[in-house]
Amino acid sequence: MTGIREHAGSEFLADFDTLSQFGRTAGGGVERQAGSEADAEQRSWFADWLRAHDFDVVADGIGNQFGLWEHTPGAAWILVGSHLDSQPLAGRFDGAYGVLAAAHAGVRVRKRFLEAMTLPPLNLAVTNWFNEEGSRFKPSMMGSGVFTRKLSLPHALSTADHSGTTVGEVLDAMGQRGEHSFAQVAGYAEIHIEQGRVLEQEQTTIGVVDATWAAHKLDIVVRGEQSHTGSTVMAERRDAVLGAAMLVVAVRDLSDKYSWAPLHTSVSEMHVLPNSPVVVAREVRMHVDLRSSDPDAVAAALAELDLAIASAEERARVTVERQGTHEWSVREYPATGVALAEDSADALGLSHRRIMTIAGHDSTNMNELYPTVMLFVPSVDGVSHNEGEYTRPEDACAGVDVLTEVVHRMVSGELARPVRD
Amino acid sequence: MTGIREHAGSEFLADFDTLSQFGRTAGGGVERQAGSEADAEQRSWFADWLRAHDFDVVADGIGNQFGLWEHTPGAAWILVGSHLDSQPLAGRFDGAYGVLAAAHAGVRVRKRFLEAMTLPPLNLAVTNWFNEEGSRFKPSMMGSGVFTRKLSLPHALSTADHSGTTVGEVLDAMGQRGEHSFAQVAGYAEIHIEQGRVLEQEQTTIGVVDATWAAHKLDIVVRGEQSHTGSTVMAERRDAVLGAAMLVVAVRDLSDKYSWAPLHTSVSEMHVLPNSPVVVAREVRMHVDLRSSDPDAVAAALAELDLAIASAEERARVTVERQGTHEWSVREYPATGVALAEDSADALGLSHRRIMTIAGHDSTNMNELYPTVMLFVPSVDGVSHNEGEYTRPEDACAGVDVLTEVVHRMVSGELARPVRD
Repeated sequence: MTGIREHAGSEFLADFDTLSQFGRTAGGGVERQAGSEADAEQRSWFADWLRAHDFDVVADGIGNQFGLWEHTPGAAWILVGSHLDSQPLAGRFDGAYGVLAAAHAGVRVRKRFLEAMTLPPLNLAVTNWFNEEGSRFKPSMMGSGVFTRKLSLPHALSTADHSGTTVGEVLDAMGQRGEHSFAQVAGYAEIHIEQGRVLEQEQTTIGVVDATWAAHKLDIVVRGEQSHTGSTVMAERRDAVLGAAMLVVAVRDLSDKYSWAPLHTSVSEMHVLPNSPVVVAREVRMHVDLRSSDPDAVAAALAELDLAIASAEERARVTVERQGTHEWSVREYPATGVALAEDSADALGLSHRRIMTIAGHDSTNMNELYPTVMLFVPSVDGVSHNEGEYTRPEDACAGVDVLTEVVHRMVSGELARPVRD
Repeated sequence: MTGIREHAGSEFLADFDTLSQFGRTAGGGVERQAGSEADAEQRSWFADWLRAHDFDVVADGIGNQFGLWEHTPGAAWILVGSHLDSQPLAGRFDGAYGVLAAAHAGVRVRKRFLEAMTLPPLNLAVTNWFNEEGSRFKPSMMGSGVFTRKLSLPHALSTADHSGTTVGEVLDAMGQRGEHSFAQVAGYAEIHIEQGRVLEQEQTTIGVVDATWAAHKLDIVVRGEQSHTGSTVMAERRDAVLGAAMLVVAVRDLSDKYSWAPLHTSVSEMHVLPNSPVVVAREVRMHVDLRSSDPDAVAAALAELDLAIASAEERARVTVERQGTHEWSVREYPATGVALAEDSADALGLSHRRIMTIAGHDSTNMNELYPTVMLFVPSVDGVSHNEGEYTRPEDACAGVDVLTEVVHRMVSGELARPVRD
């Protein structure tokens, strides 16, 4: 039953085109932030799709959406999925590709067992995690964070966007707050676009993720004092925008400085108060993102950031608070899962290589508690979080085939629960 | 009839307390941006106040509000006023002090003439200019800008805030769009808090403004490209926030560098797109404000800004557009008006000195077309555009007295139209 390249790729591609209509943008991308109208629409469509393919559709308390194939009540579950929500003006593939690939893999695996008149030992749940992107409601990876108990459910539900609307309110408005829970989870699989150029440059079809880069995310608040941009003497200003700008440049300097380890740094979000053309700003809230394959580089960067904060406080005459919002260290994916994925790609005759993921994924959370397999397919030019994000159809279909193979093996119990240190 | 210190200061202070309730903030300031509910309320209250004091209330096409004492149909007009709108979380005095001082001065002058059973040669209009602050609708000094034809009325009416609401819409909603026009304007007077520390430090009660600092305001758009803050290789990023931050720091550096002339510089407004924690920003819109008592310093700063733009474009891999939004050069107030104001202060036995205004005022616009007198009263600690803005009651009342004297002389025809170069 293994080693089959499916020729049903055209069905997958047709469904992917349909899915890509939700929140479609003029630039060929999508905009469907968690809890938006487009998110509600795609969730409704996806639930219908799952039911039409004989899955039972349920949601849990944080709006994670599951399509259940519970052939054996009481058996443990293999989850396979990703997220349908997107960044603003985003690409069609990030997350959505993995959810639809999981759904098609689930249908195919189910069909294979039913046609063979047999059942695997483990149940299967196709999964759409709520709010992986975290653009509207922070932190990112919220649904899988609550699922894995890194985040408390009441805290997540009370998280508000910048207009004061809470996660609980948008879930209720979408009718996506459920009560489902799984008695036992035996493993998780996810496929995602690479969002980098390694696979493309090496002309390799499948990336088998063996570890996650370390990441540290911080909220920074720079506090100054309102005054008149014209008449206030420069030496008396307490300019929150100046302090924030000094930190943005310092954060970038960190990356340029760390030649001994790759360090990705950014500030991409700033909220200025009162944000008036003629009032020196009293406050800037910003978000800093630091990532490296070497956790020591992240730690060293955080220490240097404190020096930059002291400089900004002195020159801009502001006070700066920093607070970590979430973080993860370099973490390996289980070797047994890596081997299972490599065997699956080999069985299909697809080229593959091991790769680290720089971005966090729902699998980053799941990998902390459950045997987890993470797969990549190539991204053209590495473009991501951009309407121009693209994965070639043949690569997308190859990924669905490998995921199908992986899921088939996982529900068959081939991925033993690894021993954790 | 000249040289009278009024003892009606308590009436002024009581009305000022009432006015300060509109849009009152917890921190003791006000928030009543142009076109807000608080602005509508205070305009309605002010119209009632003017009518109760026998002024006819009218508005022009851009919502400038006038209280008319038209004792001689066909005679030219002296306008006296300022603006009631405020910045967000602003002080009670900026603008509002000048409008209420104008109203009380108008009532007193009218009373003096009526009690003397005589009439002056010129009519009088107490004025509340629309949207001097420009925080919600740019540019600032909008109402006086349209009045003096620096701005076209259709352009101003179609100006939208960041939510897309236009000036025309808010004026209609407030019922503040009128059709009034003046056949002939003979002069303008305004009193305002200093927003600086010169008068306070020199223990002087009245500032007679003899010139305006030069100012140049620019909108800057930094364009990058959306990408993933985690996975995108640093060298491939086109980071609009980084480019913007480099410019903020460069704008401040300009000020520190120009020791040969005072140069006030700021960036106080930034709009980031998409403003997500994990998406490198594709665009930042920001506003730059440059001011100096020396127009050469402003010109030199603009040239240096272009060098900084080139650096930001190179390092952040962005493109930068800059466009001037409005500007004024150093401009003197007419010597005849300065002399009239000094004589008025002398007649009342109040200390005075000549002073330049760094901030722009509605009088900056009016001074380009009409004989204009501009007065300052002291600001404690120079605090402005801040809830803590404060002018002592005795200074506020002295200012109303001098303004009364100035208006009395102006409606009497004492300020000859100066010869313009």
